[in-house]
Amino acid sequence: MTLPAPDSALVEKLVMANRILYAQGVVDGFGHVSVRHDKSPDHFLLSCNRAPGLVKKADILTYDLNGDLVGESTLRSYLERFIHGEIYRARPDVMAVVHSHSPSVIPFGVTGQRLRPIFHMSGFLGSGSSLYEIRESNGNTDLLIRDMGLGKDLAKALGQHTCVLMRGHGSTVVAPSLERAVYRAVYAEENAKLQLTANALGPIEFLTPEEADKAMNTNEGQVMRPWELWSRAIGAVE
Amino acid sequence: MTLPAPDSALVEKLVMANRILYAQGVVDGFGHVSVRHDKSPDHFLLSCNRAPGLVKKADILTYDLNGDLVGESTLRSYLERFIHGEIYRARPDVMAVVHSHSPSVIPFGVTGQRLRPIFHMSGFLGSGSSLYEIRESNGNTDLLIRDMGLGKDLAKALGQHTCVLMRGHGSTVVAPSLERAVYRAVYAEENAKLQLTANALGPIEFLTPEEADKAMNTNEGQVMRPWELWSRAIGAVE
Amino acid sequence: MTLPAPDSALVEKLVMANRILYAQGVVDGFGHVSVRHDKSPDHFLLSCNRAPGLVKKADILTYDLNGDLVGESTLRSYLERFIHGEIYRARPDVMAVVHSHSPSVIPFGVTGQRLRPIFHMSGFLGSGSSLYEIRESNGNTDLLIRDMGLGKDLAKALGQHTCVLMRGHGSTVVAPSLERAVYRAVYAEENAKLQLTANALGPIEFLTPEEADKAMNTNEGQVMRPWELWSRAIGAVE
Amino acid sequence: MTLPAPDSALVEKLVMANRILYAQGVVDGFGHVSVRHDKSPDHFLLSCNRAPGLVKKADILTYDLNGDLVGESTLRSYLERFIHGEIYRARPDVMAVVHSHSPSVIPFGVTGQRLRPIFHMSGFLGSGSSLYEIRESNGNTDLLIRDMGLGKDLAKALGQHTCVLMRGHGSTVVAPSLERAVYRAVYAEENAKLQLTANALGPIEFLTPEEADKAMNTNEGQVMRPWELWSRAIGAVE
Repeated sequence: MTLPAPDSALVEKLVMANRILYAQGVVDGFGHVSVRHDKSPDHFLLSCNRAPGLVKKADILTYDLNGDLVGESTLRSYLERFIHGEIYRARPDVMAVVHSHSPSVIPFGVTGQRLRPIFHMSGFLGSGSSLYEIRESNGNTDLLIRDMGLGKDLAKALGQHTCVLMRGHGSTVVAPSLERAVYRAVYAEENAKLQLTANALGPIEFLTPEEADKAMNTNEGQVMRPWELWSRAIGAVE
Repeated sequence: MTLPAPDSALVEKLVMANRILYAQGVVDGFGHVSVRHDKSPDHFLLSCNRAPGLVKKADILTYDLNGDLVGESTLRSYLERFIHGEIYRARPDVMAVVHSHSPSVIPFGVTGQRLRPIFHMSGFLGSGSSLYEIRESNGNTDLLIRDMGLGKDLAKALGQHTCVLMRGHGSTVVAPSLERAVYRAVYAEENAKLQLTANALGPIEFLTPEEADKAMNTNEGQVMRPWELWSRAIGAVE
Repeated sequence: MTLPAPDSALVEKLVMANRILYAQGVVDGFGHVSVRHDKSPDHFLLSCNRAPGLVKKADILTYDLNGDLVGESTLRSYLERFIHGEIYRARPDVMAVVHSHSPSVIPFGVTGQRLRPIFHMSGFLGSGSSLYEIRESNGNTDLLIRDMGLGKDLAKALGQHTCVLMRGHGSTVVAPSLERAVYRAVYAEENAKLQLTANALGPIEFLTPEEADKAMNTNEGQVMRPWELWSRAIGAVE
Repeated sequence: MTLPAPDSALVEKLVMANRILYAQGVVDGFGHVSVRHDKSPDHFLLSCNRAPGLVKKADILTYDLNGDLVGESTLRSYLERFIHGEIYRARPDVMAVVHSHSPSVIPFGVTGQRLRPIFHMSGFLGSGSSLYEIRESNGNTDLLIRDMGLGKDLAKALGQHTCVLMRGHGSTVVAPSLERAVYRAVYAEENAKLQLTANALGPIEFLTPEEADKAMNTNEGQVMRPWELWSRAIGAVE
């Protein structure tokens, strides 16, 4: 049985997601975004080891949930593809994953603070982000999610949240579609920036869980509005 | 009786206002700006549901103060057009309205602090911004001004101010002309940035109400100077 | 007796100074830069009332120290040309003046803090900036230096400093050449940014007055290095 | 005995390093980057006195470790070439040196705080940066490393670290290759920014020395990924 090729529109959309995340400052030379295979829930699409701002269609590879490459390629894989595989395994509802070192989010992970929804754009943060401390079960590492075991740990720390902070490393955001994953990664960064600033002014009135849920439903129904803006700024992708 | 078409120069200026607000970082994929109809005080012009940075002349629609579309269109409307309609109804002096999630302003709304005029460029802030807490009369919502009742609440919170902060959402700025509304939205953001920074240095000597009033009159008489700069950077609009 | 025309290379350099200050974020739609007339110490060159980022050679006008226009022009003058005239009158050593609302400097003026030299690039700050409180002798105004009397007050507050903060308004920087005035305006803003950030970390070890003086002499001897960079990024000016 | 010419690919890479450091905001009109000569460990390559963003191949000069120019040139030398010479002399493992006024790093030097590795990207910071206080042995100076004696002092303060802060001046970063020196300079700045922000949130959990070491080894093995991104954004260099 051969795995069917993914929809070429999905591949192109994944390339666009890479470019948008770079243009929006969520990723720099590092970070990656994946999407679940449209014809097999047990596979996902992810670029080869390349800076997201340079990814093109020929770079998109297919992996199974163990992080094994489907087919052959001379292109190198990202060390941390296990982030994606194990989250897709643990969370059938998740269709796309963004891992980044999004700068305003890092300070929360290293001080053990939660990201919480400060405005309706980040309703997806619900009752807050979760935290993954790799040192707890693994001692001193290079902090990378470089095998299935670490991937499972991370997926467990994510739990039913939409965003998990990774101490000393970065964060990972998940969503039920690629556009929403990009949206959430952009607004997790924005929320972090706002939370940092507002903290200095006084105690913050965050969204209640019910407000967060309602705002998420409304706002993410509008996700094509920023997507149109972001993708037009990129133009056609190879 | 048919409503006359708005002046085409006003439509073009509204497109320009959309583009400037995006270029100046006041709006991102979200936010909107309207202007009162030049031939009917009971109508206003507003783009269809599109990111302000992409708005073109064909996107500009006409609404009555209830937020009902005049004429027919296949284009979708912004959910929050009631912000505009109810403010135009409550404030005959207002000729243009900007609603945004302008980032430096958000922290003031969620901590219950007032924006106050820190320099002569923001004299329009007078004795400070007002605050709208949607939860007070409406419980847990998605925070959007999605009907006339919420619009009226917001207009009431705005009162005679030029700027109302919306907790967990954003802010709305009003002015007696489109150019001045854009100017005020840009400098409300700038004032917020300065106020946040100065706060960390020590107690701030704000403009007195009399200074604010005088500065507003002088500075907003110069509004074509930044408008020339901002619009030339955009170039011609479709 | 007719005033000779200024050197056309000086006029061009003044246009470039306007463009650089805009590109470097020292001025926005507001602010202005002048240079003393090369053939008459009692006159100075200043653009007409236009955003610095748009200034071209034909906009450069000549004023006497009272702020009166030499010759005729249909172009409007800046309201605050008296800043320049009165400083040139009080300080024969000053050959160029930059007035701006440079954003990181504002918080110092409104909290009564001094800018002090945090690194060798801003040795010109010496023992610190001075402060001008317009309200002291003039009560509630629109904060603008709109006549000779206010200009004289400001020049007095500047004294022998290189930088005077204007509460609720902005700041003014002076120098013995146009290139150095631009350099100082850029690095006053940079110094302010650094001082704000370092303040949050702990007590700052500033340059001693002797270090400041030595650093100023060395660094400003290198002013053509950044000028080459800044002016090449602008290209040819009209 | 004549010194052989350096590899032309190395010269080109050094030009690219200059341009990248400017594009990434590590250097402005000031700062410089050098690489050890590929055919003589007792020499290094460094641009003439020019803003790094403008450096081209013909600007690259060769110096011996005393900071004396090899051959003749009409081009002026950087005053601070002794930073490079003395570090290459003291540290045979160092193949490239970046000296900058990287803005987020300055506040640490002037408040006597250490840069410490906040995330895996900056594992090279190990147990933290060292500090050079020029005033200690030299009294009041212009803060520049303008001779061999000052260069030796600085090299001593650097010791076996990868990053030395220079109070009231800037910082210097070293690495075993040019790409890694650029990488470290970029991420020293990024680390400083993150550390400043996280400080405001609460006590920071830094990388342990063992985590830092492991992370450095992994991440710097990936240095060609951001290098590809950064250099493609520059394009061909003259």
